[in-house]
Amino acid sequence: MKATILTIGTEILFGSIVNTNAVFLSRRLNELGVDVLRHVTVGDNRGRLLKALGQAYEDCDIVISTGGLGPTEDDLTKETISEFFGRKLQEHPEELEIIRNWFESQGRVMAQNNVKQAWFPEGSEILPNPNGTAPGFYLTDGKRHIYVLPGPPRENVPMFDDHVAPRLSAHEDGYLFYKIIRTTGIGESDLETRLIDLIDGQTDPTIATYAKPFECTFRVASKRPTLKEAQDAVEECMVRIRAIVGDFIYSEDNKDLLEIVMEKLKEKGIKIACAESMTGGMFAKMITDVPGASKVFSRGIVTYSNEAKMSELYVKPETLEKYGAISPQTAEEMVRGLSINSGCRICVAVTGNAGPDADEGKPVGQFFVGLMSGSEVTVKEFRASRNNRNYIREFACYQMVKMVHNALRGID
Amino acid sequence: MKATILTIGTEILFGSIVNTNAVFLSRRLNELGVDVLRHVTVGDNRGRLLKALGQAYEDCDIVISTGGLGPTEDDLTKETISEFFGRKLQEHPEELEIIRNWFESQGRVMAQNNVKQAWFPEGSEILPNPNGTAPGFYLTDGKRHIYVLPGPPRENVPMFDDHVAPRLSAHEDGYLFYKIIRTTGIGESDLETRLIDLIDGQTDPTIATYAKPFECTFRVASKRPTLKEAQDAVEECMVRIRAIVGDFIYSEDNKDLLEIVMEKLKEKGIKIACAESMTGGMFAKMITDVPGASKVFSRGIVTYSNEAKMSELYVKPETLEKYGAISPQTAEEMVRGLSINSGCRICVAVTGNAGPDADEGKPVGQFFVGLMSGSEVTVKEFRASRNNRNYIREFACYQMVKMVHNALRGID
Repeated sequence: MKATILTIGTEILFGSIVNTNAVFLSRRLNELGVDVLRHVTVGDNRGRLLKALGQAYEDCDIVISTGGLGPTEDDLTKETISEFFGRKLQEHPEELEIIRNWFESQGRVMAQNNVKQAWFPEGSEILPNPNGTAPGFYLTDGKRHIYVLPGPPRENVPMFDDHVAPRLSAHEDGYLFYKIIRTTGIGESDLETRLIDLIDGQTDPTIATYAKPFECTFRVASKRPTLKEAQDAVEECMVRIRAIVGDFIYSEDNKDLLEIVMEKLKEKGIKIACAESMTGGMFAKMITDVPGASKVFSRGIVTYSNEAKMSELYVKPETLEKYGAISPQTAEEMVRGLSINSGCRICVAVTGNAGPDADEGKPVGQFFVGLMSGSEVTVKEFRASRNNRNYIREFACYQMVKMVHNALRGID
Repeated sequence: MKATILTIGTEILFGSIVNTNAVFLSRRLNELGVDVLRHVTVGDNRGRLLKALGQAYEDCDIVISTGGLGPTEDDLTKETISEFFGRKLQEHPEELEIIRNWFESQGRVMAQNNVKQAWFPEGSEILPNPNGTAPGFYLTDGKRHIYVLPGPPRENVPMFDDHVAPRLSAHEDGYLFYKIIRTTGIGESDLETRLIDLIDGQTDPTIATYAKPFECTFRVASKRPTLKEAQDAVEECMVRIRAIVGDFIYSEDNKDLLEIVMEKLKEKGIKIACAESMTGGMFAKMITDVPGASKVFSRGIVTYSNEAKMSELYVKPETLEKYGAISPQTAEEMVRGLSINSGCRICVAVTGNAGPDADEGKPVGQFFVGLMSGSEVTVKEFRASRNNRNYIREFACYQMVKMVHNALRGID
């Protein structure tokens, strides 16, 4: 299967918003084994939308569109797609009822122009939208398929997962089942080398590795006449994979390392605190991005200046003078000070140089992470490979998460 | 002028990276008065690239492409564009010398395949790239124009500003000059109402307002036979604008509020510290995103738990019990505690509910910012209009920046 992702929205052409829909859909489609050949964004413009559809079906069988399903006159996605497929728009009274009820549930009255949101091209299958007023739809003439989704990610993400992904699997003869496996502590080429016999030796299940920032991910996919058979084939392959690289696997269902860490902290009832120099609050922000972080996160201390390191974390002036702020000694004293203040079971601290220039003679990208689990302190040195401030800071946060993850492995 | 933004890169079709180039280019092109009709992303694929070019010139006169200029075989942007325009590729010895020198300056030896980066279609104008190995180029057949830029933003952003923007202005008969004016404390419709006579009454300069997150921006643009005339026309118009909405303007050259605040802090030699509850480190992270933040930022304290608010910031247990953590009283005690710890001239603190659920009976989106400038404390209450965790946290950070900005106005 080959797909074009079609985004409809003038605000993207103005650069007012980032096209995150295309990122999400690309990832999911690739995971499902669909080749994404093209992203196209056009405004709410009939002519350009018709052209984009025409070109998409020259080499793709699937179009996934997002946006332009609003109630205003600007929004002409449905009209244009109907025209392209030579279908009429029909009102669906039961959908109108759902939209009316949705407004009521929000304590609002439905405006007349929302009626338009209950009109769909003849022969459409409606894709329900419990998170907004615009339902999506699926339309096909047997050869060309289109999935039409609303623009807001909180509406189209669940719609894709609940209603598009299952239908895409059904386009194929047979059922596709796959798992996304996430690893840490092993590079892409090393991973590939270890799995090479499995990768080369079989056509189903297939194993494909992907490099993500700082870590490696791979997909194990099988297509079989029944879902059960596909699942069994993937599981059988996983048994062999776990025997080879099981130590590096931290998730078999595509969760990221921070998610796993936050879940384990909650599960084990462990509190965490952080002290940051070079990352300047980025680690605390990442943790508190997760709703419910307050259950496990006690505090973060951003000690950007040496004075702050001394007064907030009791780093000794002699240590700063003798070894500098960017040193394993300072990292250790930071994490010990944090532990005294917070009383948390796990404390993590970072100090380093995010650039752009050398600092205290320490090269850009060098940093030290101190981790304290109970009374045990570990300090590790790292060096980011790129001279890019944001990259270095994200890399440091990733290493902090990884060290917390390792520490959690040792705690029952 | 009408443009298609063409992104070339398989990694975008995999969803591995976000197409920030399209966002940047869209903004800049719109500011320059160029209509962006379409974004298209294709992989490193000759056929699809040729099709995309063909379709772009059906309704556009300009294509701006990014990506695919690397030294490997995958990168076939130049070959394909040469083919499309019917030109041959020619080696530019002086460019080869520049690339070789660039490698030397990095302490590396140029590989043989980098020679390819010094080949350009006949008749190209080279666009220099001081930030990488791949120069860009501009090619036209008189009717169709293409600007070909490398993929990495730190290479293509300066290339666009230094070499593409001036050429785009020259495409037009006459010179375009514009200013982007940023305001705070006034909504888009209010701004438009106040400027309506100026907006409606003239065709040049033109005034267009844009709503950005949390604030309003407008562009004043003039196209005249000489650059000087265009600049004078814009300045004349600005005199009238300043008389009407001058109080709300904080930047006349498109700098954002945080940038202005950081500059003023540096200029005045003022140190700042922050204490965050709901924003969980986001404010500290924003500040430390700016290189050189260490000159003005002393520390940030992320007190997520009540214990942390008490032990790190001396918030009284009675205050938390009587008024709750989400209260003006707690915000005030947080900022006073921070001031004691940090000794900074400006301290800012926030406490609130970022959702997803009501907390202590305080609604989602409610928050309090405490600001201490010298010995003077101000506490303000805010309520974000959307129930979206990230939006609420960003809105809170914006209000913190705004209050610091106001405080700086009162300090000589």
